[in-house]
Amino acid sequence: MNYRLIFKITGNVLRIEALLMLFPLIVSVIYGGGDHLAFLWSILILAAVGTILARFKPKDKNLRTRDAFVVAGFSWIILSLFGALPYFFSGYFNSFIDCVFESISGFTTTGASILTDVEVLPKGILFWRSFSHWIGGMGVLVFMIAIIPSNNASSINLLRAESTGPSPDKIVPKIRETAKIMYLIYLAMTVLLIILLIIAGLPIFDSLINAFSVAGTGGFSNLNASIGGYNNITVEIIITVFMFLFGINFSLYFILLGGKFVKFIKDIELKVYFGIVIAAILIITINISALYGGFWEALRYSSFQVSSIISTTGFATTDFNLWPTLSQSILVLLMFTGCCAGSTGGGIKLIRFIILMKASKEELDKIFHPGSVKTVSVNGKKVSNDIVSKTALFFFVYFVIFFVSLLLISVDGKDIVSSATAVISSLSNIGPGLGDVGPTGNYSTFSPFSKVVLSFCMIAGRLEFFPLLVLFTPSAWKRGLIK
Amino acid sequence: MNYRLIFKITGNVLRIEALLMLFPLIVSVIYGGGDHLAFLWSILILAAVGTILARFKPKDKNLRTRDAFVVAGFSWIILSLFGALPYFFSGYFNSFIDCVFESISGFTTTGASILTDVEVLPKGILFWRSFSHWIGGMGVLVFMIAIIPSNNASSINLLRAESTGPSPDKIVPKIRETAKIMYLIYLAMTVLLIILLIIAGLPIFDSLINAFSVAGTGGFSNLNASIGGYNNITVEIIITVFMFLFGINFSLYFILLGGKFVKFIKDIELKVYFGIVIAAILIITINISALYGGFWEALRYSSFQVSSIISTTGFATTDFNLWPTLSQSILVLLMFTGCCAGSTGGGIKLIRFIILMKASKEELDKIFHPGSVKTVSVNGKKVSNDIVSKTALFFFVYFVIFFVSLLLISVDGKDIVSSATAVISSLSNIGPGLGDVGPTGNYSTFSPFSKVVLSFCMIAGRLEFFPLLVLFTPSAWKRGLIK
Repeated sequence: MNYRLIFKITGNVLRIEALLMLFPLIVSVIYGGGDHLAFLWSILILAAVGTILARFKPKDKNLRTRDAFVVAGFSWIILSLFGALPYFFSGYFNSFIDCVFESISGFTTTGASILTDVEVLPKGILFWRSFSHWIGGMGVLVFMIAIIPSNNASSINLLRAESTGPSPDKIVPKIRETAKIMYLIYLAMTVLLIILLIIAGLPIFDSLINAFSVAGTGGFSNLNASIGGYNNITVEIIITVFMFLFGINFSLYFILLGGKFVKFIKDIELKVYFGIVIAAILIITINISALYGGFWEALRYSSFQVSSIISTTGFATTDFNLWPTLSQSILVLLMFTGCCAGSTGGGIKLIRFIILMKASKEELDKIFHPGSVKTVSVNGKKVSNDIVSKTALFFFVYFVIFFVSLLLISVDGKDIVSSATAVISSLSNIGPGLGDVGPTGNYSTFSPFSKVVLSFCMIAGRLEFFPLLVLFTPSAWKRGLIK
Repeated sequence: MNYRLIFKITGNVLRIEALLMLFPLIVSVIYGGGDHLAFLWSILILAAVGTILARFKPKDKNLRTRDAFVVAGFSWIILSLFGALPYFFSGYFNSFIDCVFESISGFTTTGASILTDVEVLPKGILFWRSFSHWIGGMGVLVFMIAIIPSNNASSINLLRAESTGPSPDKIVPKIRETAKIMYLIYLAMTVLLIILLIIAGLPIFDSLINAFSVAGTGGFSNLNASIGGYNNITVEIIITVFMFLFGINFSLYFILLGGKFVKFIKDIELKVYFGIVIAAILIITINISALYGGFWEALRYSSFQVSSIISTTGFATTDFNLWPTLSQSILVLLMFTGCCAGSTGGGIKLIRFIILMKASKEELDKIFHPGSVKTVSVNGKKVSNDIVSKTALFFFVYFVIFFVSLLLISVDGKDIVSSATAVISSLSNIGPGLGDVGPTGNYSTFSPFSKVVLSFCMIAGRLEFFPLLVLFTPSAWKRGLIK
């Protein structure tokens, strides 16, 4: 392993985090609340540790695939641990484990909280929670690629390790340009959302933090009743639409900006995403209409909730724990699927389902035409057998991690629905589940051990398993410290 | 498609079924109960339809892979439909759908019942329910191969389509001999079990039907309280051991008969099976010991239940709905995994987990050694990439069918745990689940539509999806009727 390079990159990640923490510091100075010292101390520690690590001089500046995976896993753990410092220094959290849980939940864009009352928090802390969604949504390594020059091959390996889906698209040949374009689109959409929320009547601060949460498909809010607390239908409609939009592959926006509208709407994953959202909204609306006294009110809640769950944001405007089983089953299915690869959302990703549906169909066809060569294509491009089998294995790994985690947190003795959906929700980076972890609940009653398990699930889910799993292989550690 | 051959084989299957129905007829004549006419009529119908179908003269006597898949799917549906006739004629069932559900549940060795009281049934019907487990356990097509001469290539395709696991073992070069040996081992073990149960104090009739249920890993019993109703610890121990034994790959017994004891105990799937059973029993025993006033009594219930669920038998001696979440989660996991390939049990099968665990490890290793060629071996034999990717796809198909079925039966409005475990239990051919379908419950309260969905799941699970799924592909129907 190229440990020097790994440390250097992790150091840069920490320095970037220190820089980004200036924003909540400014917020806390403007709004007061006494949390400015928490940020000041954190920034100093981050800058110091980051600078020490960044001084490592690698002999070889090439980041290989394996190094990139280790960097991704390692730097996300470090990012989250150090990101927990402001929470810890603020004094609003019960333990350091709680701070780390909240930090990981933030960066992984999960939005699961161990806090029972977020309305007592100072503005700086509230800002940092949602801002961490924004940073984690597109990815801190992608951000680093965009701002710090490095060679193209190293960058693409990093991009691959951090971004979501079976194979990320290079939208322009230069990776640094790709990363920049991604972040610019992300920024522009976020700014547009902030403006719309302000126009809809939200205070500036609320508009900022809710926009960050939507953009990163996170789900932290500044109200205990989440978006439902505003009871503002315009805000709900705007957020419903934008949660959906941030669940779309960002390279499609680049295609759209290039004027290729037909290519945009012909994208198979987008079509499936759109179709599932419409179907789910319709079925749930009909299923819950008796609860809300009619179709239109039911449509309001179902469309918000479907968009929130499939995009893996996790905002709520109503308690879907009270919905009928059919609606709940649909939501649980959407928790597994998630949205599109290359978006800020989590979950298994629809493209994986599309690839495997096609592969399964090929498998059936092979029974009838034994000699035929199996090929799966998506959007007119052939998907290699290697990607197909990796994608199928992804399912298996998801299943195994799901069950192992379920067994581990079952020790707490919560009912099986709460336990299972807490794990799914963590793995898919959503936030709420059903039962105790439903929209009106939170993760505060889990044991410290379960919080660690669920934190692991959140990072594993965000990095799509392999970058985190490599850290647990002997191969990652068996060579000498210096390559 | 070679429809003539498919019809001919299906005709033979029905004639075999008519022959096997003589046993419950004899039972009903001996014990009385008034159900003898139900069997007599059924036998006449089966023999007539079977003889008509068996008269089809195929131009080509070779059964290709695709034909074998279609035969397996088609003949299992026909077998179950006609097997429902005695239930229908007996007058003890509410509707024909209920009869079909019970019949499919029997042949697929599920053991899920729509009856609320089995103790009122006449002995002939009780015998037929459990005897259908015995027939379905090893497979009716395997039985046909054993008794009706046909060419070797056709037989191996049939054996492949009906037997469980990623790739069935030919224990001797001649398939007919393989099928005969399998059935002889099966018969010998069943007879041994019957004798032991009689010695342990069960009446002869009870010994017979419980032995059939254990051998087929089915789960139908003649008591409403299942095996718990006997409150006989010797019976429980015998059944615990035999449920475990029938969950082992039968080709391993052939190896054992050949004196190769070392090869037997070195089998990786057997080792994993044994290890999981021991671990599950220990954890559950500790977890439930407070409920049963001590370790030994807890061990009694946990060992029976673990053996019952992992072998997918589904007998119960206690209501595990009352167990803590950890124990329930373990049971749900065992419902997914099931036991060994080539056994009479259901579920995903442990060998699939072993193959995919190894494949996932290879995938991780490839990150470190990008040039290396991926190979997975099991028991010293290389598993082809084709089998690995088929195995991984199996998981995906399981997941998709699970969720589609869950959504469909969720319409009934049962709670999510009852609905989800009803589907898992049907797919894995177990019987009981949690909640409404727990050990003290049954499937009577599902809507007719849900019963059809769950019946589909049971056959799909028993045939491991593909033989049933091919029936729904256009390729199976688009050619002319006569090939």
